Amino acid sequence: MAAAVKALLGSSLATSRLCGCVNFSKRLYSRSAKRVRVHDALKSTETGSTIRIQGWVRSVRSQKHNVFLHVSDGSSLQPLQVVASSDLNPRNLSFGCAVDITGNLEKSPSKKQNVELQASHIDVVGECNPVDFPFKIKGHHSLEYIRQFPHLRCRTNAFSALLRIRSQATDAIHSFFRDNNFVQIHTPVITSNDCEGAGELFQVEPAGNEWNLDEENPHFFSVPAYLTVSGQLHLEAMSGAFPAVYTFGPTFRAENSQTRRHLAEFYMVEAEIAFAESLKDLMEVMERLFKTTTDNLLSHCAEDMELFHKYLSPGYMEQVNLMMKRNFNVISYTEAIDVLNRSSEQFTFKPEWGCDLQTEHEKYIVQHCGNVPVFVTDYPYELKPFYARDNQDQPQHTAAAVDLLVPGVGELCGGSLREERLELLRTRLAQAGLDNTYTWYLQLREFGSVPHGGFGMGFERYLQCVLGIDNIKDTIPFARFSRSCVL
Amino acid sequence: MAAAVKALLGSSLATSRLCGCVNFSKRLYSRSAKRVRVHDALKSTETGSTIRIQGWVRSVRSQKHNVFLHVSDGSSLQPLQVVASSDLNPRNLSFGCAVDITGNLEKSPSKKQNVELQASHIDVVGECNPVDFPFKIKGHHSLEYIRQFPHLRCRTNAFSALLRIRSQATDAIHSFFRDNNFVQIHTPVITSNDCEGAGELFQVEPAGNEWNLDEENPHFFSVPAYLTVSGQLHLEAMSGAFPAVYTFGPTFRAENSQTRRHLAEFYMVEAEIAFAESLKDLMEVMERLFKTTTDNLLSHCAEDMELFHKYLSPGYMEQVNLMMKRNFNVISYTEAIDVLNRSSEQFTFKPEWGCDLQTEHEKYIVQHCGNVPVFVTDYPYELKPFYARDNQDQPQHTAAAVDLLVPGVGELCGGSLREERLELLRTRLAQAGLDNTYTWYLQLREFGSVPHGGFGMGFERYLQCVLGIDNIKDTIPFARFSRSCVL
Repeated sequence: MAAAVKALLGSSLATSRLCGCVNFSKRLYSRSAKRVRVHDALKSTETGSTIRIQGWVRSVRSQKHNVFLHVSDGSSLQPLQVVASSDLNPRNLSFGCAVDITGNLEKSPSKKQNVELQASHIDVVGECNPVDFPFKIKGHHSLEYIRQFPHLRCRTNAFSALLRIRSQATDAIHSFFRDNNFVQIHTPVITSNDCEGAGELFQVEPAGNEWNLDEENPHFFSVPAYLTVSGQLHLEAMSGAFPAVYTFGPTFRAENSQTRRHLAEFYMVEAEIAFAESLKDLMEVMERLFKTTTDNLLSHCAEDMELFHKYLSPGYMEQVNLMMKRNFNVISYTEAIDVLNRSSEQFTFKPEWGCDLQTEHEKYIVQHCGNVPVFVTDYPYELKPFYARDNQDQPQHTAAAVDLLVPGVGELCGGSLREERLELLRTRLAQAGLDNTYTWYLQLREFGSVPHGGFGMGFERYLQCVLGIDNIKDTIPFARFSRSCVL
Repeated sequence: MAAAVKALLGSSLATSRLCGCVNFSKRLYSRSAKRVRVHDALKSTETGSTIRIQGWVRSVRSQKHNVFLHVSDGSSLQPLQVVASSDLNPRNLSFGCAVDITGNLEKSPSKKQNVELQASHIDVVGECNPVDFPFKIKGHHSLEYIRQFPHLRCRTNAFSALLRIRSQATDAIHSFFRDNNFVQIHTPVITSNDCEGAGELFQVEPAGNEWNLDEENPHFFSVPAYLTVSGQLHLEAMSGAFPAVYTFGPTFRAENSQTRRHLAEFYMVEAEIAFAESLKDLMEVMERLFKTTTDNLLSHCAEDMELFHKYLSPGYMEQVNLMMKRNFNVISYTEAIDVLNRSSEQFTFKPEWGCDLQTEHEKYIVQHCGNVPVFVTDYPYELKPFYARDNQDQPQHTAAAVDLLVPGVGELCGGSLREERLELLRTRLAQAGLDNTYTWYLQLREFGSVPHGGFGMGFERYLQCVLGIDNIKDTIPFARFSRSCVL
C-alpha cells in the first residue's frame, strides 16, 4: 500500500490473495519515511522524526543559504513551513507546483508556527508555470476573480476553506438528523410531479437522436419528466411509515434571474415529521438544526471560519455570535403586517394583508427583531399551496405555514403543517382542478393518515448566513445559473 | 413542544421570545404521558411506567375479553404488542390505521416479546379501509407486488426494512470517508461536459414556453446541458488541492434497457485520491469501503438484514459472511482471458484479448474465485477512456484500470489511475479530437499535476449484493427507468 493511502487509511489489510496473479503498478516509491498530512504535522509533538509530505507550494522565499517554502495539502488552512538548504532547491520549484518532500520535523525558531520541516529531499512532482497560472504568489485575489476559474479555484486559500466548511456542514447536518432518529430518504431528482404547475421547471429527455421520440411515445419516461423542485411530497409518503424522515440533495429552478441569492442547481435540506401537532414542533427542529450545525462548524472549522469572519466579511463573527446566543423570534404574519404598517420606513411595495412579504419587508422585520433570526407564522390561506394545513380561523383566514428569515439572506427556511384531513384536502384539490393528478397523494390520507409537517432549508443560503458571503455562487463547488454551466 | 418532537429531540429549548405575539396552533394534546418510540419501548426496562406511542396497526386479533394489536412506528422492524380490554376497542380500529395509544408498559407473559403495552386509551388518528388498502392483514406480498404502490410500499415490513438499511448504509459510507479524512464535494448534477460523447445522456432545458428559446440563444445555460453520468472529472479538479475527496449522489443514464441491474437514476459513491501511486492503493480503499460499510450494517441493522437473509433470499447470509471473511481476489485482465479460454464452459461470446468482458464472463470469473469478490486489473488500453493511465507496456498495451466484480451483481466498482502526464494526455485527447473540449482538464495537468486515481461504486448494486435482492428497483425509494417515472 502506497504512502498516500496509508496516511489516509492507517494500517493495511492482509494481502494474501486467493487466485490469479497480482499485477500491481510498479510505481511504488522506494522512500520509507512516514507520510503525514500537513494538518497532522502541524499538531505533531514528535519533533525530530523523519516524515514525508506531499502537497502544493503556496509560497517560496529564497535567502542566501536557505529557501523557505509554505506547503499545503488541503488538510488545513495553515501550511507547513519547509526550510531547505539552497543547494537542495530544484530549478523548477515555484508557486503552485506539486512537491513530495522528506525531512525532519523540528521545533520552529519562529513564533509564527510550532514546527517546521527541515528538508533533506525535495521532488517537484508537477511543475507550474507562474506566468500562465492565474493565481499569483503575492496576489490577493477577490472571490469574484477566482470564480472565473472553477477548475482551479480550490487551490486558493479562500475556496479551499469554503470547501472544507461545506463538507463539515454537510456532515454536521447528517449527524443532527441521525442523532435525532430521522431516516434519510433519497428523494428522486427526476419526477413526473409538476409541483403545482410552477413555471420554473427543467424538463428532461434523452439527448441526441433519441430526443425525438415518435409521436405515440413522445417521452422517454412515457410522461413528461422534470427535475425536482422539492422532495416534500415524496417525504410525505414516507411520513406514513416513519416517525421522522429527511432528505439532503440537489434541487432545481429554471429561473432566468441572476441574483446573489439564486442558483439553478442548489442543495436543500428537507425534513418531515409524523405526528407533528403545531408549528412550534417545526420551529424547534429548525432552530436546533441551525444552532447545532453552526456550533459544530465553530468547533471543527475554527481556522477556516475565521478566514471568512476576519478577512472576507470583517466583523461578521459578532453577527454569528448574536444568532447563536439569542432565541429566534416568533411573529405572526398578521402582526408582521402591523409592524410594517406602523413603521416610518418608505417601502417600494405597500405592506398589505393578503400579499406576499417583499424582500424589503423581510429585511425590515429582521432588523426590527434585533438582527436575530425570526419565524413568521400563519400566512394567509390563499397565499399558500394546496398542502398547507387550514387553520380554519376567521375573519382572517390563515394556513399553518412558517418561514424563517435571517440577517443578510432573507428567507432561509419555509415549512408548514400539511393538510392531513382527507375531505378538506380533496375539496381544495378539486377546486384547483388537481384531484386527478394527486390521486396518490389523497391515498396517503385515505389509509392511516396522521398529522404531520415539515420544512426545507436552503443549504447555500445557510452557508451565506453563517459565513457572511454576499454571493451564493461562492458557496458551491460548481455554480449553475441562467446562461452559465461551466464544466 | 408537542410529544412527537419531544420524543425525537429530547429536552426543550428555552421558550422566551424577543418580539411579536406567539401564535401557535392550539392543537396540543392534553395527555401528559411520555411519548416513546416503539424501538425504545421494546428495549425499555422501566416496566410499570405509563407511556404513549404513535404509529400504525400491523395486526389486530380479537379475543373474548381482549384485543391484541401490533403497532409499528417505523423505528424498528419488530412491532410493539398492545393489549386492550375489548370495551376500549374503537369501532374503526383496523389493519393499516394510525393510532395514538396510552398505557402501561409491562413485562409480557409471552416468550415472543419482552414487554407489551396494556392500553388505557386508544385513539384512531387516521382510519384505513381494509377493503381498499392494497396490503392485506395476512397477506405475504412479494416485492414485485408492493412495487406497484410506490407511495405506500414503505408501510410494508420488507420495504421499511430496506429503507432503514439504505439510510444506515448511507450514513456508514459518509462515516467511512470522514474517518479517513476525505473532503466531501457536491459535484454538479447538471453539466455541460458530455462525458466522452457517450450516447446515453439526458439533456436539460426549461419546461413549457421557455423551452423554445430563440435561435440565437437556443439553450438556457448558453450551451447544451446534461445530467451527470459521473462526478469523476469534477473530483479530479479537486484532487489538485486536497489529499482525498469523494461524492455520493444521484447519477443518470438514458438507457432504454430494462434489466434487473439498471436504473435511469441511481446513486453512486465516487472517490479520488491525490498522490495515489498504484491500483493497489485504490483496491485497498474499495475493499475497506465495502467491508466497513457491511460491518456497520450487520451491527446496526441486524434485525432488518435478517429479514432479507432469512426470508427474502434464504441462505444468503452465508454468501455475505464469505465476502466479509475472505480477502478479495486480484486477477489481471490478461489472466482472466486465459482463465476463460482454459475453461470448459460454453460461452455465447468467445473471450478474446482486446474485447470487453461480457456478463457471462464476469459471472464465471467470480465463480472461479470461489464466489468471493474479485478485482480485474489492467485492461486493454484501447478499451478505456482517455483519462485512464497508460501502463506503457508491450506487446499487450494496457491501462491502469480496475473493476470489482461481485457475486450475483457483476460489476460493482470501476476505477483507474488517471493520466497525470500532460504530454501523454494532450496527445491522446488530440487523437480523439477532444483537446479543445478539455482545455480545462489539460490545465489541471499544466499547473501542479500529481499522480492520482479514483473509483466509483454503484450504491444500489451494493445493496443488491449485501442483501441478495434480485431486482435493483427494490433498493431505491422511487425507481426511474425507461417508460416509468411514477410520482
